[in-house]
Amino acid sequence: MTDFDRTRAMFRLPEGVIYLDGNSLGPLPVAAETRMRTAMRDEWGAMLITGWNRAGWMTQPRTLGDRIGRLIGAEPGHVVLGDTLSVKVYQALAAALEMRPERRVILSDSGNFPSDLYMAEGLIRMLGRGHELRVVAPGDVADAITEEVAVTLITEVDYRTGRLHDMADLTARAHAAGALAVWDLAHSAGALPVDVARCGVDFAVGCTYKYLNGGPGAPAFVYVAPRHADRAAPALSGWLGHAAPFAFEQGYRPGAGIERMRVGTPPVLAMAALESSLDVWEGVDMNALRAHSIELSEAFIARVEAACPMLELASPRDPAARGSQVSFRFAEGYAAIQALIARGVIGDFRAPDIMRFGFAPLYISPEDVGEAAARLASVMTERLWDDPAYRIRAAVT
Amino acid sequence: MTDFDRTRAMFRLPEGVIYLDGNSLGPLPVAAETRMRTAMRDEWGAMLITGWNRAGWMTQPRTLGDRIGRLIGAEPGHVVLGDTLSVKVYQALAAALEMRPERRVILSDSGNFPSDLYMAEGLIRMLGRGHELRVVAPGDVADAITEEVAVTLITEVDYRTGRLHDMADLTARAHAAGALAVWDLAHSAGALPVDVARCGVDFAVGCTYKYLNGGPGAPAFVYVAPRHADRAAPALSGWLGHAAPFAFEQGYRPGAGIERMRVGTPPVLAMAALESSLDVWEGVDMNALRAHSIELSEAFIARVEAACPMLELASPRDPAARGSQVSFRFAEGYAAIQALIARGVIGDFRAPDIMRFGFAPLYISPEDVGEAAARLASVMTERLWDDPAYRIRAAVT
Repeated sequence: MTDFDRTRAMFRLPEGVIYLDGNSLGPLPVAAETRMRTAMRDEWGAMLITGWNRAGWMTQPRTLGDRIGRLIGAEPGHVVLGDTLSVKVYQALAAALEMRPERRVILSDSGNFPSDLYMAEGLIRMLGRGHELRVVAPGDVADAITEEVAVTLITEVDYRTGRLHDMADLTARAHAAGALAVWDLAHSAGALPVDVARCGVDFAVGCTYKYLNGGPGAPAFVYVAPRHADRAAPALSGWLGHAAPFAFEQGYRPGAGIERMRVGTPPVLAMAALESSLDVWEGVDMNALRAHSIELSEAFIARVEAACPMLELASPRDPAARGSQVSFRFAEGYAAIQALIARGVIGDFRAPDIMRFGFAPLYISPEDVGEAAARLASVMTERLWDDPAYRIRAAVT
Repeated sequence: MTDFDRTRAMFRLPEGVIYLDGNSLGPLPVAAETRMRTAMRDEWGAMLITGWNRAGWMTQPRTLGDRIGRLIGAEPGHVVLGDTLSVKVYQALAAALEMRPERRVILSDSGNFPSDLYMAEGLIRMLGRGHELRVVAPGDVADAITEEVAVTLITEVDYRTGRLHDMADLTARAHAAGALAVWDLAHSAGALPVDVARCGVDFAVGCTYKYLNGGPGAPAFVYVAPRHADRAAPALSGWLGHAAPFAFEQGYRPGAGIERMRVGTPPVLAMAALESSLDVWEGVDMNALRAHSIELSEAFIARVEAACPMLELASPRDPAARGSQVSFRFAEGYAAIQALIARGVIGDFRAPDIMRFGFAPLYISPEDVGEAAARLASVMTERLWDDPAYRIRAAVT
């Protein structure tokens, strides 16, 4: 039994389904059901308000943050959980901008997840100081890091294509230009080795419901480099980021280090599920994970390209240049994904024409990849997507 | 069997414990355990990513929002769930301030929950336009509503004393002065009848883990008056507040009405627990609830004052002027509450000297009140609080 057979057995995967959408929502860890029952009955139910101390609810955003920290190469004590990724983007970006008051450009790229751009837009409007959100093509980021740039706001892995930015190189370039680097790890954490400390990243944010399998709507996380931790000014200065939350002082005093990135009451039930998800990661070697991920995605590309000439690879061909997903372009991609789902292979679609497949090494096997490629081939070559029923778009795709 | 015997039976209350801290964290509804199991296994586990449509996860913030809307007198379609209360305060306050660009004063009072003040402070710093957070004594709010005021930011029920502001009167005064009114309903929703529509409230926010019993860290809610709903500018412009979230456009376009107050991915598991909590509220008449609440708090005050002359009532004596809690001042209040908890009555302490008791009519009976008062009397008259063990303060009180 390989290490990934071991981790695969820790998930409840529906019979007969090959799940290639863990990059959107990871599956249910078996232990999460029991853990949640305990959180509901033995903690909330039995301890009531005393659970904040007795069950450790109040410190859990830091405890779990450190467990995520290991997966992204963060120094212990510098990651905290809470809120949604969009809110964490706002916090990190606001703090970073405030450290470069004389500059006005936020640099991002068109491969960034739209919510990051939207949050930056909203922040710029709030600040009202003429900041500019400069969005360039993914391949142009390096050259666009000029001395005008206050902050780079980049998602390491492109949600559509899986294209991987060079975090070490871009961070170094940002610093050389006097800018700060904020990284979004939504499609990186749990997908590939990340080393925010070694790369000198200033701020990083991410979500826990994709490769980390924390459950639908699981909380986000934020990392602040130790050198900034006691200087970052919180835009969202909520009581749990206060130096003494339970002193109920009238004025805000930021807490020490990463504590100040907390805002409101932590999402206890969601954290219970996430705790079980993080248990699965114990002992997982991130380099072995990456090797397995590449093996899976290379096999998928080879088989699909051999069988489906109508699909155009949208992801980088070089595995070192992509994350743990593979995307193909196809004009009728939406319908093709629906047809494939009807045949037990869950991938997803991203407008306008991207068919996206995530390879979460914790539970996807080489056999799954072979079978998924075969079913995709039959959908494509037999034109199974050409059924009007598959063209009716649901609200969420 | 009264209606409140019926609702009491819907909670899992620990044997032998009288729980007077539902104003901080409501107890576990029995049905929430089953509902959560379904959400975990049958939704997340079995539906995986398709749960967003098939299980209605994506629309739940609005569906549950409307159920809360009924309890606070909101027009259907104008309440949405998500984030924490602090984040919702920021959103509401930012949108309101933007509607009064020529004014610079945010008026609040010293009885407001500190996080509301902290979030206002952070927002003011972000805006950098010289706004002033003017904090007056609770009784001075009405007179402080001048034409300088852009927005009043008031929590209806004082978290320490239970003092109740007159929402209709203060909102009318705000409007007469050309200001907007943002109300925090943290200790109101589920505690007493609220009618935001009739009062002409502009924005309201609240949490669901107190009297609504949604569970530790349950999501917050926000109400925007219909007349503002399509004009309020979102400060936290996240993708789920976008007019077309799944079009993945590069620029932000606010969604219609209350949709624009959504930010990131909804907290699905937390919403599952909350759904069961809201089931308990079905059919509950808010006027009957209020009558029951007053009966309970009046009985408690009468008994405690008769038996414990060393306790000074910190809440308004007139039940019409307080929420659903009763507070007493006592210099050794922290130790006294610990001694009382050791005797099976859970109340809480708020610095510097407030012993606080919440009366959640859904599950607190007149018998509970009598027994709680008797145990409090023995703690006080026998000086049971005078034990060094009770003076060791935990991190969370």
